[in-house]
Parts: sequence; structure tokens; C-alpha cells
Amino acid sequence: MTTEFELIARIAALFGAPEGVAVGIGDDGAVLDPGRFDLVTMDTMVEGVHFDRDWSSPQDVGWKLLASNLSDIAAMGGGPGAFFLSMALPAALDPGWPEGVLEGIKEAARALVPESFEVSAGGGDLSSTHGPIVLTMTLMGEASPAGPVLRRGAVPGDRIVLLGQTGLAAAGLAILRGDVDVEPGQFACALRAHRRPGAQVRAGALLGLYGVPSAMIDVSDGLVQDLGHILKASEVGARLEAYSLPHHPELVMLREEYGVDILRLMLTGGDDYELLMTIPPARMPKIWDMARRHSWDVHDIGEVRSPDEGLVVLGPEGEPVVFEHGGYRHFEAK
Amino acid sequence: MTTEFELIARIAALFGAPEGVAVGIGDDGAVLDPGRFDLVTMDTMVEGVHFDRDWSSPQDVGWKLLASNLSDIAAMGGGPGAFFLSMALPAALDPGWPEGVLEGIKEAARALVPESFEVSAGGGDLSSTHGPIVLTMTLMGEASPAGPVLRRGAVPGDRIVLLGQTGLAAAGLAILRGDVDVEPGQFACALRAHRRPGAQVRAGALLGLYGVPSAMIDVSDGLVQDLGHILKASEVGARLEAYSLPHHPELVMLREEYGVDILRLMLTGGDDYELLMTIPPARMPKIWDMARRHSWDVHDIGEVRSPDEGLVVLGPEGEPVVFEHGGYRHFEAK
Repeated sequence: MTTEFELIARIAALFGAPEGVAVGIGDDGAVLDPGRFDLVTMDTMVEGVHFDRDWSSPQDVGWKLLASNLSDIAAMGGGPGAFFLSMALPAALDPGWPEGVLEGIKEAARALVPESFEVSAGGGDLSSTHGPIVLTMTLMGEASPAGPVLRRGAVPGDRIVLLGQTGLAAAGLAILRGDVDVEPGQFACALRAHRRPGAQVRAGALLGLYGVPSAMIDVSDGLVQDLGHILKASEVGARLEAYSLPHHPELVMLREEYGVDILRLMLTGGDDYELLMTIPPARMPKIWDMARRHSWDVHDIGEVRSPDEGLVVLGPEGEPVVFEHGGYRHFEAK
Repeated sequence: MTTEFELIARIAALFGAPEGVAVGIGDDGAVLDPGRFDLVTMDTMVEGVHFDRDWSSPQDVGWKLLASNLSDIAAMGGGPGAFFLSMALPAALDPGWPEGVLEGIKEAARALVPESFEVSAGGGDLSSTHGPIVLTMTLMGEASPAGPVLRRGAVPGDRIVLLGQTGLAAAGLAILRGDVDVEPGQFACALRAHRRPGAQVRAGALLGLYGVPSAMIDVSDGLVQDLGHILKASEVGARLEAYSLPHHPELVMLREEYGVDILRLMLTGGDDYELLMTIPPARMPKIWDMARRHSWDVHDIGEVRSPDEGLVVLGPEGEPVVFEHGGYRHFEAK
């Protein structure tokens, strides 16, 4: 097993002088620059639950751990800063594995974080375990000057807007698991969406800065479930128009050539790390303008309604779709 | 398994309105009061490594998790605030277990944190695992107005001061493990030191406020190893006078009646969560004064020396003791 000291040296080499951190790794705790960070997220990845060493490299796992935390900060309309990493590692693990995790975090920071922010290592903890690898990251961030964007804030009449696409990461996982018998080489985007998801870091920060969304969340549990979180926090209902959802070409191929139920993937598949928001009609021109300027993939996919309407999902033909026990069924009428 | 929602409801019921946290559990992340927290610690406890369900109740485990983090903040001379908790739990686990952890955290907060600070729940993450339980806590804190106390800062001539006692938690673990064949009922303090360690929250904050220590650390890895961290960070040497260490009556009983090598426990035993600091001679009257006023258990146990002297440990008879590979041996002369 890599010693704590070797790993600390590796972190220091990879992440250098930590922006926003006055005292980082090597004391009892970290000292942050006063007043710098006011957002905190925490995400855990467990081997055998969130990742499999057969399907994902340590770099993939590190990448995804940072991406999932970045996505939470983006969903609050803020920008990322210092992270803290706990790794529980089996004694027999190849020392290259935790180093690979650090490299993956660094690669994700380079690829996903715009220059206006810097992701730095503030500290962490290293433990041994007799079981599967468990990684926990706490990421600090800065809310925009306009304040954080919360899940509460949606009001009836707001449009429901998706920035990005859903279902691709779940498709990638299904392919890796062998649930679908396909040639993986044809599905590079789906595999990448599972292994190295993006995070809408720049978009989240800009949306927060311009105060565009009334509520926002990142799509990590699945579109319908995450929309449900906004509805519950905002005490409203919604009509989700599934026919307006974007269909990635690889999803279309999965449906056309392999008969996969891609609607289920798009509505309930997790780990997309895209942004789901509600926007008052008067601010819709602003999001279209931003989408054009920044080449964002923006989709108007429904409307916030009064709470007594609950959540109604309209399927591809406009028919209501009802969800039960993690699955769903189509109905003829509501 | 307890659902995430039931546990969140339990956290909310136990920890109420979070002091210092504008938006807590229930959004993508937490929003902290601006400028409030500038210290961060992170500690992980792994079942089978840091605790055993046969020896510790879930309340014990929750207590110890908070205590270890509180101790890190105390060692920086600051005060604690919001915590973030990740729990990776086996699906078959009794739902009462994670609830017990929360109760233990609450009990430790009540018992160890003075009224001038409030420990609140800022958020967290709940995962399933196919392996042992893994708990990670990130605790935010506030440095004193005088600034944080770091590990670097010790200079030759400073006295080495221990607040509290070492070796008792390691004795408790040895008894629970059956390494020593004793009647556990005789060793209530040792068992408690392992299961429900204290944390010098009030003392740490006061020492930071009055700027007494030149460097400070909490004793979690063992006295000699933790002193080594101060020496390395401060680039100094030291003479540790083991004959000045306090001997708890239960340790004395272990030596007298069972022949246990208690010097080893006192010098290398972990998990004591006491405070080890260096203090310039001119400020020693201040610590004695504080010790009298607050009934602190303070011991002057050595001196900071020049870096070329390294770390010299003088045993019970004043003879040098040399440490090797986690053990140690006595020498006739240096």
C-alpha cells in the first residue's frame, strides 16, 4: 500500500499551491482564506456500487468523483474551489491505484473547470479497509454575488429547462454490465458518459451570476426523480414533456437496432451530471441567448404547475406515463 | 436499510436549526453563512479498522467520529461548527445502527462542546456498500481572532506541554481485543477512553484565543509520532522526558498487576485526542494559570531542541529510548 506520505507528496505535486487555502495538507486541518468559500458538497463512491474496477480505471473513478461534486456546486449557481478527499483502501491494493485517482481528479479539473476557477487540494484522510474501496470528497465552492440557486424557488408557470442530455450514462453502464448485447465500440459517447461524465461548471456559474433559474438541480438520480426534488422543495407540480427530450444518436441506435427502452433511460437513468432548472417565462429569452452565445445544449421540456396537479409525465405520443417502484408504465388517460 | 429520507428527518430532528448554515440538508449542497468558517478537518472510520461492532455501540462510533474531528479543530486553536457526514452502509444493516451513530454524534456534541460553540449538521451523503461500514465526517470550524495555531511554529527552547493523558485509549482497545487478560470491569476509564474519547474543545479554543502555544497538534497517532509531526513541520528537534508523563491509576494497575508495558502505550498508543503543544518559556506562567483556573490536567514533558539533536526520548530512569518500526528499545547511552 502507498504510504500516506507518498500520497500527500503526489497530491502536492499534482495540485500545487492551493488557491483559496492558506494552510493546506500537513496540519490538523486546513485553513481557508477568510470569507472565500460558502458552498459545501459531499459525495461518496463505493466500489461495487458506484464503480467497478473491471470497467473503470482509477483515473475514471477520480474524474467521476470530482465531476459529481463539481456538478453539485454548478447546480447551486456557484463556482468550485478546494476539495478534501478521504480514501479507504485495501492493504493489498496496487499503489498505482490511489495515485491514478489523484491523476483522474487532476484531469477532470483541467477538462471541466474554466480558468476563472481553480480546484485545489485542501486536505483529506487515508484509511485502510478490509472491504471495497470507498472514496469521499468534500468540495467547497463560492456562491455567485447574486446568491446561491436553490431547489426551492420554482413557481407555477415557470418553464422546465434541461441543459444537456439524459440517459447516456445509464446506457453506458448497461453496456458495460452486459445488460445489452452490443458492440461497445459503437457506443463511445455512452461509455464515456458513464466513465468520464462532464459537469456544467461554467454554465452553472453563469446561470447563477445572471440569476436566470428560479430553481436548479443537477441530474444525478435520474431526470424524473431530480425534478421531483425541485417540486417537493418548491411545493409545486409539473408537466414534463418527455417528447421534448433530446435523443442522442447512440440512444436512437440502441432503440432502433437493439430494441432498448431508451425512454426509461432518459427519464430514470442516473449519473448524467447535467443541469435541470426552472425559469420564469420572462427570462426564457435570456437562456436562449446564452445558449446561442455559449453553444449550450438547452431544451425546454415542460412547465411548472400548481401543486395539486402533481407530476405528470407526457410520453412520446403525448400520453401520460406513470412511475411506480422505480419503473413506469404508460396509461391511456390520466 | 433506513431510507435516506428517514435518516435526513432524524438528523433534522436531532440537530435542529443549523447555526452558521444558511441552507443545510436538502439541496445540492449546503450554503454557509458568509465568512463564518475557515477551518476544515476530515476523518474517516472504517469498521474492522477503527471500530468493531462487537466492542462499540453505534452511539460509541458516532461519538468517536465527532470527537476525532473536534480534536483536530481544537488542535488548531479554533472552535467547531457545521459537520458533513457520509455513511456507506451494508443493505442488511439494522436501521437502528445509522440512527445510533447520529445519536452518538449528538451526545458527543452535548458533552464535549461548550455553549460558546454549536455543532450543527450541514449535509452529507448516504451510500450502500457490499463491505464494512465506512463513515467520513468533514467538520468546519472557526479560527480564533488571533489566527490558527499550526504544527509549525515551535522553536528551540520552547517547552513541550501535554494537556491530558496518553495511553488510556490504547489500553482500552488492548483489553477489548483480549490482548491483556484482565477483568474489564476494573478498567472503566480505559474502556471509556477507547469507546467515548474526550476532545479538548474548550481548552483548544482558549489556548488559540490567548495565543499561548507556538505549535499544537492533537494526540491521535500516538505521542511520539504526533510530536514528530510538530518537529518536522517546525524543523526542530526535541527531548521528550517520558518520566514526566502522567500515569493514570488504571495504567499503573495494568503494570503492577498484569505486567503490561505501559510506557509503550503512553508513548505510542493512539486515539487519545488530547492536546500536545509547544510553549515559549515566557508564556509558561500563562498555561499554569489557565490550568489552575480551568482545572486542566497539564504536564510539562520536555523541551524543543535544535534540529540536529533529532528526537530524544528519555525513559523512566532518564535513559534514552529508541523507536524502531513502531516499537522501541532502551539504550544504555545515546
